[in-house]
Amino acid sequence: MGASVNRQVLLAEKPTGKLSPSHFKLAESQIPEPKDGEVLLRTRLISLDAANRAWMHGATYRAAVEANTVMAGGSISEVVSSKAPGFVTGDLVFADTGWQEYAALPAKHLIKVPPVAPMSHLLSVYGIAGLTAYFGLLNIGQPKTGETVVVSAAAGSVGSIVGQIAKIKGCHVVGIAGGAEKCKWLVSELGFDAAVDYKNTALFKELKAAAPKGIDVYFDNVGGDILEACIAQMNNRGRIACCGAVSQYDGAPSATGPRGVPGLIVVKRLLMQGFIVMDYYDQRDKALADLQSWVSSGKLKVQEDIIDGLENTPKALIGLLNGENRGKRMVRI
Amino acid sequence: MGASVNRQVLLAEKPTGKLSPSHFKLAESQIPEPKDGEVLLRTRLISLDAANRAWMHGATYRAAVEANTVMAGGSISEVVSSKAPGFVTGDLVFADTGWQEYAALPAKHLIKVPPVAPMSHLLSVYGIAGLTAYFGLLNIGQPKTGETVVVSAAAGSVGSIVGQIAKIKGCHVVGIAGGAEKCKWLVSELGFDAAVDYKNTALFKELKAAAPKGIDVYFDNVGGDILEACIAQMNNRGRIACCGAVSQYDGAPSATGPRGVPGLIVVKRLLMQGFIVMDYYDQRDKALADLQSWVSSGKLKVQEDIIDGLENTPKALIGLLNGENRGKRMVRI
Repeated sequence: MGASVNRQVLLAEKPTGKLSPSHFKLAESQIPEPKDGEVLLRTRLISLDAANRAWMHGATYRAAVEANTVMAGGSISEVVSSKAPGFVTGDLVFADTGWQEYAALPAKHLIKVPPVAPMSHLLSVYGIAGLTAYFGLLNIGQPKTGETVVVSAAAGSVGSIVGQIAKIKGCHVVGIAGGAEKCKWLVSELGFDAAVDYKNTALFKELKAAAPKGIDVYFDNVGGDILEACIAQMNNRGRIACCGAVSQYDGAPSATGPRGVPGLIVVKRLLMQGFIVMDYYDQRDKALADLQSWVSSGKLKVQEDIIDGLENTPKALIGLLNGENRGKRMVRI
Repeated sequence: MGASVNRQVLLAEKPTGKLSPSHFKLAESQIPEPKDGEVLLRTRLISLDAANRAWMHGATYRAAVEANTVMAGGSISEVVSSKAPGFVTGDLVFADTGWQEYAALPAKHLIKVPPVAPMSHLLSVYGIAGLTAYFGLLNIGQPKTGETVVVSAAAGSVGSIVGQIAKIKGCHVVGIAGGAEKCKWLVSELGFDAAVDYKNTALFKELKAAAPKGIDVYFDNVGGDILEACIAQMNNRGRIACCGAVSQYDGAPSATGPRGVPGLIVVKRLLMQGFIVMDYYDQRDKALADLQSWVSSGKLKVQEDIIDGLENTPKALIGLLNGENRGKRMVRI
């Protein structure tokens, strides 16, 4: 890291199909000067999420990412210098710094976070991933003891926590993940009752075998064909927490996916509800207290996947979209 | 009506494509004898509903209708003789008699209804249509004053009531219906703020013009492409009451319809919830009291479409599926 140079990764071009390294480029700029009310941050850990790819399609719950600007992304960063009250050198914050070493941002956009060891837990179990799993499963899914909970992208940062919380709540838990190895890991390491490999062509049949009493809660991270298979096996008055649609992010809009959805929603009186973790931030203290007690008692295992070096961020995101990670993926700067 | 003959309409064959008169046949049987605990009913008014067609596809919230049996359907019927306590000659009931003049049914499956003039109101505004509109709009849609409510199949039995209740609640109300004449009627007679003709190719654009502030509540009777257009124009935290998917009932499963639904549900935090009116029967007294007060004060206009003669029931259902009715269609026996 140079003393006065700010290394950055820009989105060179908006992808129309699959994301590749050629859509990014490295750049260097001056380390910015914070203005009044701003704070200069040094990036420590960049969070990688499937949503990064969705932002390239257009405005979602945030503005679209544009070509030739610093790639957007959240990070845990450290305050280098501050021109804002309430922030001092050494403070840790969660911030939308983008993929770069330094950023000067208005203090009002920063969320101060406590020092935690290891720091990476601030992006995984105590970060957006953990809170998303917690609120989506408990507030929308409302699982009851003995019910069957299915989660897709189950080996991912959110899914791996969803399944474990569902176990803590006494549910029969089925994970859907890509590949036999990940599936084995979900059962043997994380305590899922069963796991189904979506790369297997018999998804529908295997899901039926793994969830013989039907599905009461489906935590959907992927959309598309897997959502379709789950909807068909939902029990009456089932709940679908719509967290993401990663199957539809990386490429042109999908030509496959659930058809006839409303018919099944009616007949089964399903509830399908989209949510974004920020909607529940007023309940964050309770959520964090629960997560911390589960982690410290060993009921909730934290799985992280940390990669080193800013220059490896594009490859790390592409790998995540291809399902190569287990647990929360992040880049150490 | 013969003195000892029971005229019936049978489903002769399950349709695979569009429903036609050849899928039905007339038959005659003996008037049945009620057993102990049963009641002999004479059918007065048969309810026609798009759901009749959906039942032919397979089990829904009721068993599938099978070939060579009396076509299923609800009716207002009169007790001819009773072998069950609590029912006497002359009582009126709502019952699943099917399309026939007489039926002997267990008393426990009958819902006694009060005498109302005109009797047809028991199938329209005070029947399943009115209660479906009431609970779907108010319990799931939860419209607030000033919000925009859109309803499809707006000239139909449920839709025409949904729109009027939404007006009573102070909403901006847009109906989607087939044909300029129906659209004009929705605005001039029922007081909708705007109506959009779905047969017009510019549905998306016209909907945007009619609901310039976006859609807060969409009451979905049709599914398919119209649902897709509405989802795209929903506001954040919008509610979709999934009542039916009539666009998908009459024919083979649809090749068109919403794709990418979960993506939009997530980003907009939409709630999509299926429901069936029976789920809310514990709140029926309050609903009926509201409906009666709106009807008697002239705020809610009752539109009915009554056809005479059992032999005309198949044609009347086919016409309903083609959107020929305004308000609640029924057959007088």
